[in-house]
Amino acid sequence: MIRTAVYGFGNLGRAVCRAIETAPDMFLTGIYSRRAAALRLSLQEDFSAELFREPETLDRSAGKTDIIINCGGSARDLPRTTACLARTHCVVDSYDNHPLLPEHFAAVDTAALYGSTLCIIGAGWDPGLFSLQRLLGAAFFPESAVSTFWGPGVSQGHSDALRKITGVLDARQYTVPLTESMECSRKGSTGLTGANGHRRICYIAADPAADKSAIEKAVRTMPNYFEGYDTEIHFVTPEALQTEHSRLPHGGCVICASPAEKNLRHSLEFQLTSEDNPSLTAGILVACARAAVKLHRSGAYGCRTMADIPPALYLPQDGDTIRSQWL
Amino acid sequence: MIRTAVYGFGNLGRAVCRAIETAPDMFLTGIYSRRAAALRLSLQEDFSAELFREPETLDRSAGKTDIIINCGGSARDLPRTTACLARTHCVVDSYDNHPLLPEHFAAVDTAALYGSTLCIIGAGWDPGLFSLQRLLGAAFFPESAVSTFWGPGVSQGHSDALRKITGVLDARQYTVPLTESMECSRKGSTGLTGANGHRRICYIAADPAADKSAIEKAVRTMPNYFEGYDTEIHFVTPEALQTEHSRLPHGGCVICASPAEKNLRHSLEFQLTSEDNPSLTAGILVACARAAVKLHRSGAYGCRTMADIPPALYLPQDGDTIRSQWL
Repeated sequence: MIRTAVYGFGNLGRAVCRAIETAPDMFLTGIYSRRAAALRLSLQEDFSAELFREPETLDRSAGKTDIIINCGGSARDLPRTTACLARTHCVVDSYDNHPLLPEHFAAVDTAALYGSTLCIIGAGWDPGLFSLQRLLGAAFFPESAVSTFWGPGVSQGHSDALRKITGVLDARQYTVPLTESMECSRKGSTGLTGANGHRRICYIAADPAADKSAIEKAVRTMPNYFEGYDTEIHFVTPEALQTEHSRLPHGGCVICASPAEKNLRHSLEFQLTSEDNPSLTAGILVACARAAVKLHRSGAYGCRTMADIPPALYLPQDGDTIRSQWL
Repeated sequence: MIRTAVYGFGNLGRAVCRAIETAPDMFLTGIYSRRAAALRLSLQEDFSAELFREPETLDRSAGKTDIIINCGGSARDLPRTTACLARTHCVVDSYDNHPLLPEHFAAVDTAALYGSTLCIIGAGWDPGLFSLQRLLGAAFFPESAVSTFWGPGVSQGHSDALRKITGVLDARQYTVPLTESMECSRKGSTGLTGANGHRRICYIAADPAADKSAIEKAVRTMPNYFEGYDTEIHFVTPEALQTEHSRLPHGGCVICASPAEKNLRHSLEFQLTSEDNPSLTAGILVACARAAVKLHRSGAYGCRTMADIPPALYLPQDGDTIRSQWL
């Protein structure tokens, strides 16, 4: 049995706890949260584990936890907390800031080698499952073009960016891939990413006293997030936002196709849709936690990404069973 | 550089030679074929490697070859030849008889442990790339149903089976997945495999003197291959078969979806299409050969399947480059 602790208890942490409790080879040893006192009162789910206040009580898990799944809320928290936890525990996280991933990898690797632990970072659907698909496409079809499209689904990063605009009470942003760009990628075209591959639809609940045209301008000119994108903006009531946009669906696809000028064409397309982004990521994190513990038990230390993990380690079964059941 | 030999020189062997010659980190050390003398005369392609007659000359490759890609023509040959080669060389093959894979694995594992070599078997698109997709789906979405559909494409095994019927001069069989079965799988239904998921279309060039109704009966009642399937039979001339059915396209898809009764639904779909089955398999075999050599150089021995291979090993780049480029 793999003794698993969950660090952070937001949407993702709750989904991870549920996934651990249905895994045949894992049990939940503890939930760590800064808001432990408040959460204990409002805790609806009936998890078997104790809820601890971090960081004061984290040392309680030493020796009775094989792995910590870091469900820290934001891309800002994870670099600090995973590297810190890695000095004493095996850890997996779903850090998703692509450009800073090598930096995070180096910090966690140093900590894990110091502590003789094994960590997997970037374990989600992108980076993570989509990275594997891109990598397999590039490896098996070296002459093909690889493109990634995100959505249709809610981008939490873009929704957060909208909420920071003065006068915005709450907001939800849907990323939608452009059908015609996906079609071009299937024919082997490249460069269909960012604003060339997606449009953005925003639902904004504004303060009644706010200037809507100023909000709209702030959205459309926000660099990196909305500037250059075909962006649709809808002002709605806070109630409509709650009732019509409370779910967190997401998905996307990876397309790998030989350029049209090739004599022999191959194409590979991986599509993912989920009605609930946190439970999707939770399924991947839990399988990665299992793989990390197996690797650690075999004597491996340091930081890994999903590109380094033999896929059979994600499953609870042994090699013979996997060969007869899944190959 | 990875010194690679190719064993067997049919459609697959030729495609593998072409893939090796475009790989940045590999070169072709030799091509081994029982028909070497005949082939040397008719060899159109301009490969840099020598063509040897096997098995007499195979010992020439000892010490100057890192890996042999076994492109043996039939599922009958591979169990014997891979296990034999594995005693002296690292080997990859694309053995595709699913039920007998565990047996082949055990034989190759024994030989590879004896010879301190590393082998990867079942390295193709199914088993192989599709096995990985099934395994990832089962690991990340443990409550979902996983289905595989093959085609539309030419099944060489079924085409061969048709050719063995008395009175058949040549034949081509297309496997076609049923759209409605794929739709049910996307909704999380199970059991949509074999005759519940596919139909078969046969193009047969019969001897003019043969009894077509007897051939048709022999096809429809052939157990394991056609019996129970919705099978369409067309009699055509040998010329029509050559001109209209000479290509070897194939493909298929793996669908993994939560059952409809689940509250939160996820679905994952992997689609593959290729205009040329041998060059598709060749791309996978060459990447697996690279991975096998890297594993062997790190001190690993024995037999593996693609479920055991860290995906980063398939690429020629190092870890830092892969992390910044593909994650």
